[in-house]
Amino acid sequence: MSQSDFTWSFINEGNVIPEGFRFSGISAGLKTSKKLDLALILAPEGSIFSGTFTQSVVRASCVEICEQRIKKYSGLLRAILINSGQANACIGNLGSQHFQISTEKISELLGIKKEEVLMCSTGVIGVPIKINDLVQNLPKLVSDLEVNSFQNAAEAILTTDLTLKKVVIETIIEGKKIKIAGLAKGSGMIYPNMATMLAFLTCDAGVGKEEWDNMISIAVKKSFNAISVDGETSTNDSFIGINAGEKINKRFLPIIQSGIDIVCQNLAKSIARDGEGANCLIEVLVHGAKHTEDAIIIAKSICNSALVKTAIHGCDPNWGRIISAAGNSGIKFNLNKVDLYIGDFQILKKGILNQFDSQKVTSYIESRMNGKYLVDDIVQIVLNLNSGQSRGIAWGCDLSKKYVEINSEYTT
Amino acid sequence: MSQSDFTWSFINEGNVIPEGFRFSGISAGLKTSKKLDLALILAPEGSIFSGTFTQSVVRASCVEICEQRIKKYSGLLRAILINSGQANACIGNLGSQHFQISTEKISELLGIKKEEVLMCSTGVIGVPIKINDLVQNLPKLVSDLEVNSFQNAAEAILTTDLTLKKVVIETIIEGKKIKIAGLAKGSGMIYPNMATMLAFLTCDAGVGKEEWDNMISIAVKKSFNAISVDGETSTNDSFIGINAGEKINKRFLPIIQSGIDIVCQNLAKSIARDGEGANCLIEVLVHGAKHTEDAIIIAKSICNSALVKTAIHGCDPNWGRIISAAGNSGIKFNLNKVDLYIGDFQILKKGILNQFDSQKVTSYIESRMNGKYLVDDIVQIVLNLNSGQSRGIAWGCDLSKKYVEINSEYTT
Repeated sequence: MSQSDFTWSFINEGNVIPEGFRFSGISAGLKTSKKLDLALILAPEGSIFSGTFTQSVVRASCVEICEQRIKKYSGLLRAILINSGQANACIGNLGSQHFQISTEKISELLGIKKEEVLMCSTGVIGVPIKINDLVQNLPKLVSDLEVNSFQNAAEAILTTDLTLKKVVIETIIEGKKIKIAGLAKGSGMIYPNMATMLAFLTCDAGVGKEEWDNMISIAVKKSFNAISVDGETSTNDSFIGINAGEKINKRFLPIIQSGIDIVCQNLAKSIARDGEGANCLIEVLVHGAKHTEDAIIIAKSICNSALVKTAIHGCDPNWGRIISAAGNSGIKFNLNKVDLYIGDFQILKKGILNQFDSQKVTSYIESRMNGKYLVDDIVQIVLNLNSGQSRGIAWGCDLSKKYVEINSEYTT
Repeated sequence: MSQSDFTWSFINEGNVIPEGFRFSGISAGLKTSKKLDLALILAPEGSIFSGTFTQSVVRASCVEICEQRIKKYSGLLRAILINSGQANACIGNLGSQHFQISTEKISELLGIKKEEVLMCSTGVIGVPIKINDLVQNLPKLVSDLEVNSFQNAAEAILTTDLTLKKVVIETIIEGKKIKIAGLAKGSGMIYPNMATMLAFLTCDAGVGKEEWDNMISIAVKKSFNAISVDGETSTNDSFIGINAGEKINKRFLPIIQSGIDIVCQNLAKSIARDGEGANCLIEVLVHGAKHTEDAIIIAKSICNSALVKTAIHGCDPNWGRIISAAGNSGIKFNLNKVDLYIGDFQILKKGILNQFDSQKVTSYIESRMNGKYLVDDIVQIVLNLNSGQSRGIAWGCDLSKKYVEINSEYTT
């Protein structure tokens, strides 16, 4: 039985989530807007947690503690508390104090040990969490734990996001339904003092700790680490993947990996597409590279170029900027071998300008500016280096005056 | 006699340039605007050339040839031809052909060998130089070589620049006048690894090849490689430093170094300040670092952050973004030791928020937006890591809607 016999289906019904997991999302008054701002994810006993955290030197204390607990208490962790509104970063010792108070209280309410709870925060940097409001609302958060509260949890982790970011997929392996669900927040790698990308994934196919760590790491490389809104990394970026349930036969791990990849890429694209002031998703596919890493670095360099992003915003097929951004990636390639496409239009053929109708390429880009979300609002750039068999993909968004407006008129 | 006994004076008279050098700048019709677009620098016999070139993988052929000739013909080189309008990049073999035709013709006119001429180009990528117009105008370019054509040369190398970038300084060492003159272009695609930036320096104190290479490299690190407009690096970035004249006593080399540093930093700041759509120069000084390199990397990371740049544009003392950009630099530091200042206002004291009047900081930034060019239009950010004795500085500019407008409405 080959991998191609399995397909993952997207599920839109709110109450279909991986077996044994529970979610909750409420308003605890942490945001001035009175929107949902406190979420809880409860995993079954014996769950396996894996985490990836911001590479920034300035990390919120919640990030430090989460990383330590995932290392130390693997197989024992049960819950993740998430607040939006305040990032719990750059506030001295108060950060870890608030983490301890919150996780201890929630562990009492859940009847588990305090070390079994993680906490992630997102919001304004340098402002303490409204800890009394948070603690007072924990009983309600726990009593709301439901199968169909998945959407509430996804809403409660948002800050300045314009769109909800959640995805659930399922497949059947040996007669058994397997489900993977993901939720995320982020709209700019960092928002104006509103930090962060947070993402969580749950899966009801059991996978051992070592394999799970590896699978999560592979998925992150091809998804969250391949998006760029503005080249910024926050103090709080975190991604946590959890699996629980009967151990699945190892020969099916590639199927699970493909499912994790789908969920992570879907969430990552939602984040890039929701970039501040963005009007389209830019998808850059680099193939014909010597190594996958090289292809991804070049693709990211193009996605992250302010000049490419403004050109796309202006619907201008300015291929010189694309090539220049590729050349600026640090990865060596031979320009005389390069084929470049924007959409279906070939711009360069072995490094030489191909005859193309500039107006048609402009029309193509223009048409993507008003396309359907994550369907036909994608501007595709394809670069074939013709120097190897490896490929990589990255996503970004156009750079508009709105981005400058949002980020220069934001006040703390 | 100590270094402090020497001061360099800025010279504004157009006809004061280093002894023995000649400049020329004319319009050859390469630009549609009919502005000056062709420049020539003629150095005395026995001049020493040193060059630093773009780190991009995609380099114009003129960059490749210049680098080779400087290596091979040190002590023999005499002239640099510079055209603006077309970058002579990404046009296949035509690039080196046009280089050869142009330098051969100018060598005939100057009565020197063809290998003794360099050529630098800047302008649109992917469009061949108007080679006939260029060649036809070379006799006029040579006949215009004059002491007081320095300003014309500085004008002829500009593209989208809004300001002329030239500086001349002089000092007296053992009764002899020593002069250093620099000219530059660049206002977008500017980033540390040498950007769409051309710069030339001439000096009439004789310095040996090995020392000169070293001195130029030191100056570049502290100037052109410490500026950022948008994180972009171009195909054509080049900086060439030339010295000629009687060899100066080695004990005076630190004086010459300080002069080169002044000229390079002055030109570099002009480029950052002239960043597309910029309204102020952002100067970031990092001190208390363990190593100079670390300090420079952090300073550059802050200058290059889109979120810091938009915050400054909005006159918003958003310190969270500054700290976040520092944390995102990859250099480790302890936040609990950090002091942060914007102008004279202390924002963080040992990592903890200091009481400051946010409105006053906003007023300070606002006041710099309409300041006098390179005098009081500088927004200063000072970060003391309190962890060592090393310091580094970097320059950038604010990010405005105008930047997006210029770059999204620009057409090839």
